[in-house]
Amino acid sequence: MSPNQELDAFLNYLRFPSVSADPHKAKACRDCARWLSDLLASWGLATELCETGGHPILMARSAQVEGLPTILLYGHYDVQPAEPLDQWENPPFEPCVRAGMVYARGATDNKGQTFALLIGLQRMLSQGALPRNVIILIEGSEEIGSPHLAEFLSKNRTALDCDAVLVCDTSMVAEGWPAITLGLRGIVCLELVVHGPVKDLHSGIFGGAVGNPASALSRVLARAQAGRIAIPGLYDRVKEASPLEIASWGELPWNEAWFQSASQCCAKTGEPDRSVLERVWARPTFEINGITSGYQGAGSKTIIPSRASAKISLRLVPDQDPDEVAKLVSAWLLQEVANEGFVGEVTTDHGAPPFVVSPENRFIVAAQEALSETFGRAPALTREGISIPVAAMFQREMSTPVILAGLGLADCDAHSPNECFPLARLEEGAQFFQNFMRRAATLRS
Amino acid sequence: MSPNQELDAFLNYLRFPSVSADPHKAKACRDCARWLSDLLASWGLATELCETGGHPILMARSAQVEGLPTILLYGHYDVQPAEPLDQWENPPFEPCVRAGMVYARGATDNKGQTFALLIGLQRMLSQGALPRNVIILIEGSEEIGSPHLAEFLSKNRTALDCDAVLVCDTSMVAEGWPAITLGLRGIVCLELVVHGPVKDLHSGIFGGAVGNPASALSRVLARAQAGRIAIPGLYDRVKEASPLEIASWGELPWNEAWFQSASQCCAKTGEPDRSVLERVWARPTFEINGITSGYQGAGSKTIIPSRASAKISLRLVPDQDPDEVAKLVSAWLLQEVANEGFVGEVTTDHGAPPFVVSPENRFIVAAQEALSETFGRAPALTREGISIPVAAMFQREMSTPVILAGLGLADCDAHSPNECFPLARLEEGAQFFQNFMRRAATLRS
Repeated sequence: MSPNQELDAFLNYLRFPSVSADPHKAKACRDCARWLSDLLASWGLATELCETGGHPILMARSAQVEGLPTILLYGHYDVQPAEPLDQWENPPFEPCVRAGMVYARGATDNKGQTFALLIGLQRMLSQGALPRNVIILIEGSEEIGSPHLAEFLSKNRTALDCDAVLVCDTSMVAEGWPAITLGLRGIVCLELVVHGPVKDLHSGIFGGAVGNPASALSRVLARAQAGRIAIPGLYDRVKEASPLEIASWGELPWNEAWFQSASQCCAKTGEPDRSVLERVWARPTFEINGITSGYQGAGSKTIIPSRASAKISLRLVPDQDPDEVAKLVSAWLLQEVANEGFVGEVTTDHGAPPFVVSPENRFIVAAQEALSETFGRAPALTREGISIPVAAMFQREMSTPVILAGLGLADCDAHSPNECFPLARLEEGAQFFQNFMRRAATLRS
Repeated sequence: MSPNQELDAFLNYLRFPSVSADPHKAKACRDCARWLSDLLASWGLATELCETGGHPILMARSAQVEGLPTILLYGHYDVQPAEPLDQWENPPFEPCVRAGMVYARGATDNKGQTFALLIGLQRMLSQGALPRNVIILIEGSEEIGSPHLAEFLSKNRTALDCDAVLVCDTSMVAEGWPAITLGLRGIVCLELVVHGPVKDLHSGIFGGAVGNPASALSRVLARAQAGRIAIPGLYDRVKEASPLEIASWGELPWNEAWFQSASQCCAKTGEPDRSVLERVWARPTFEINGITSGYQGAGSKTIIPSRASAKISLRLVPDQDPDEVAKLVSAWLLQEVANEGFVGEVTTDHGAPPFVVSPENRFIVAAQEALSETFGRAPALTREGISIPVAAMFQREMSTPVILAGLGLADCDAHSPNECFPLARLEEGAQFFQNFMRRAATLRS
């Protein structure tokens, strides 16, 4: 393809409103997967659209040569909802190029990042220069938690057998400053309900005699954390990041002031003796995502509420285990609520394990060299505080190293209105893929 | 009127859906006031329907005799909304007599209690036996906070000049066990908002670096109170109930177990060294009426919420001042939020001062004697934990003692479905009024 054809194909990819969360967009998701499948087939790959019970997963592979090592490239064709629509400068599924940037929902996350690498693949294929086996796995449910992926990986273990997984869905440090993400936090989500009186009570008649579940909830949540998490045992499995790793983070531009400015919030949290990046990347959190109790409308209603509840999520770090933490935290919360004299109830929602990979893994080293070659600058070895369940899933299901080499930037506004992707990144991504494949080819399977 | 005519009139009074809170019921309120005005006029009273900007206030008076003392009887013709309608056994405004009880919205609160006394007045009038001046003041906005009453009292100070105010809108201890309520708690309502990041933030990217306003709110609310209220200065003006008064409460059937059973909640609160009635009647509370923050829907949303807020009300006791407490608590909350590193905001809603009257006041003594004569049992001298702004309003605006001699019982379900009033209470109320008027007539103006 010519550079114009590459851009045209990318813009066509962005035109599908493949919002996995919206049931009305199921056909758009399917159409998108079909379009991409046809494109990859036209490049000479063997493609297959696999049914999952949800949105289909696209699997494609180069002509497999026995004995040659295999790289699996993972991406997702589904995107976040585009709302609020009135904040977009162009309609989110009518991509627009302005000043070297492509604006559209999915431009960065993940159509742009994946397509950049696919362009590199297409160039190698068209030149007959692909030095090893490639498997492409592009799913359509990443933004809704990849509910069918673990089962799919497990069922297709043989077909997906590979030496390394390459994922381009994380962040660079800055323009021209690439990064490899060596760690991600895991997550546990739960909800705590404190059951109080049988119904909302008149605070005049009962106030002073009957306990208030919102007060009890406040006290329990207050005891749970203030900087450090106070739940006994929670840090038992936490593995410290190495002093070398922590020191290297000190050279990155993300300091306390950066976080304050990005959040427009000066209130700090976390362990004061840890650097801000250590707190965000390598330390667990206990976060209240929501609280609800009693009257929330206009004016006043003088009641003792009958219940109070909080949505809580904990970010986990190596080697914490989501199930273990969920049990530990649930038991602690219930005991604390009982100590307040109330009946508590905890429900656990989804969880994901943390992820970490060694910078010394030979495929990680190859990716570092390929990024250096592409950008003229050695990549930062970072972590991210977010959870990408698929990373740990590949590691667990397939026992292969996962390379997180993303091309995103904070100002690409993934998940926000006016999401964009620099055209330059499309070219850099294509080059990075080729540089990586050539280096990886020198490694034995 | 014959007993049948008295009951018929009462049932007619109950048929008006005089829900002051419902703008669609404004005409029903006005019709109700007009009907009552016509009835009192037919008894020989001079009546006047006074416009207030809201629902009219009915003022009626006996032929005034110079030099004779005057009793003002206060009541309200408006009622609480009747919802939930499906929980009523008969339509709430189609009164129904079953097993000696009248079922209808307003049966107890306040049409029944007031009408019982009015029957006593009518009997005295028809017998030419009214021993002193009477002013009747029946308003139509009590259930929405009497927004125009203070102004009305202030403007009509001369016309409403009296020696004592009689209010029949509180509770007896039990069937056959009357009570005079010597104290009520006041109230201050406010809302605290803790402003966090500029918008909801991704808890993976920012969690550990950016403070969570819901956590801060929890910590501030937890610090505010655990049993005793921890806000410095809050108890400065709190006047202890007398040991004699507290001891007398020990004979009442409302103990800790009663409150647990009525609330179906075993969680206790308040100062452990105080009896439950002291905590409910004579000690201030800091009550969380509602909390809202972040995500409250199904499942999980992993955010640091941008704000968290709580509706808070404090019940006040003599001699606390609502404005002073509002300022004290607001300043404390804002300082605590600032100590957490956040920006807080407090808005104050309505307030009402506490009320207390001496059991030795000669009109209170007359009411005690009248209740003893009526029920064959001396009334308990109680307080209530609720706030009835009108009581303090009369005391402040007109400097007259206020006698709270109610005929309600907890199982009359005021404000609840199937509100009812025993027919026996109608007769007892009529007798009490006559007994009281005769005794009060012996007191000088």
